[in-house]
Amino acid sequence: MSQSEVDTYCMATAIQEAVQGADEGGVPIGAALFLNTHLGSPDQTKLLGAGRNQRIQKGSPTLHGETAALEAAGRLPANVYRKCTMVRTKISPPCSMCSGAILLYGIPRVVIGENKNFVGEEELLRARGVEVVVLGDKKCEELMSTFINEHPEEWNEDIGETGEKL
Amino acid sequence: MSQSEVDTYCMATAIQEAVQGADEGGVPIGAALFLNTHLGSPDQTKLLGAGRNQRIQKGSPTLHGETAALEAAGRLPANVYRKCTMVRTKISPPCSMCSGAILLYGIPRVVIGENKNFVGEEELLRARGVEVVVLGDKKCEELMSTFINEHPEEWNEDIGETGEKL
Ligand SMILES: [Ca+2]
Ligand SMILES: [Ca+2]
Ligand SMILES: [Zn+2]
Ligand SMILES: [Zn+2]
Repeated sequence: MSQSEVDTYCMATAIQEAVQGADEGGVPIGAALFLNTHLGSPDQTKLLGAGRNQRIQKGSPTLHGETAALEAAGRLPANVYRKCTMVRTKISPPCSMCSGAILLYGIPRVVIGENKNFVGEEELLRARGVEVVVLGDKKCEELMSTFINEHPEEWNEDIGETGEKL
Repeated sequence: MSQSEVDTYCMATAIQEAVQGADEGGVPIGAALFLNTHLGSPDQTKLLGAGRNQRIQKGSPTLHGETAALEAAGRLPANVYRKCTMVRTKISPPCSMCSGAILLYGIPRVVIGENKNFVGEEELLRARGVEVVVLGDKKCEELMSTFINEHPEEWNEDIGETGEKL
């Protein structure tokens, strides 16, 4: 199986979370933390935790997709994170907070659904040696565009924007 | 009242959280988000949320002092964060994740207890225009040194370190 096929397989888990978020009326962003994605087979790739943005459901300003996935994975030894990939549906690189969480734990690889709408911290991640892989996933893009069109204010709140720029 | 006196007044709230964390057997780091600290008086300064590291108490890898304070403050409009100061007891600048949360929400000012042991993201915060103020607070330092001496493994886990470097 190619790396891209493994990444797509992992992305399916994050997309399930995002779809569940959309069903709940939440920001439709999901993420999942996987161990050993580089071994080239779903059999050797282990899901450690998956989650979705909880701004609306739990009134949480800190549970984005990635932090929710880290929270679901729970406490892990530092050397486990270093063999992980964070997969997220969001159609952009991770925001400052989620990028910071990825850097804190030394997660070496991030797979994102697509790269539009919100610039995020791709440059910071790359400068610190994190591999950022962009999968062109139509479902990820569609979930986000629908949400942003229908809930521009909640989207701005999620990315810390006053909305004046948009 | 001088700015430093207001900051010290705010720090007392973060220290209460850290002491409670220590009493619970947790990582003794507290933080608090305050609105309008720059107005020079505790009367005009409003506590929006305070929290403490929850790694041990809740098995949480994402609730550090600052993220716990943000979580306690709940959902806020973007323009509120821009008038806030984040005060934290930790004797170092915020870690990547907490710095990222500060950058995400555009919090313009961070007050820290002291600056030792763990370098954090002071440079990144300053490069992005965040004011970082160091208060020399003996209580903050004492809480941390006791914890690090007694629980070096849990401290390394909290900062994403394997412990090999220490
Ligand atoms: Ca997110
Ligand atoms: Ca902390
Ligand atoms: Zn994020
Ligand atoms: Zn932190």
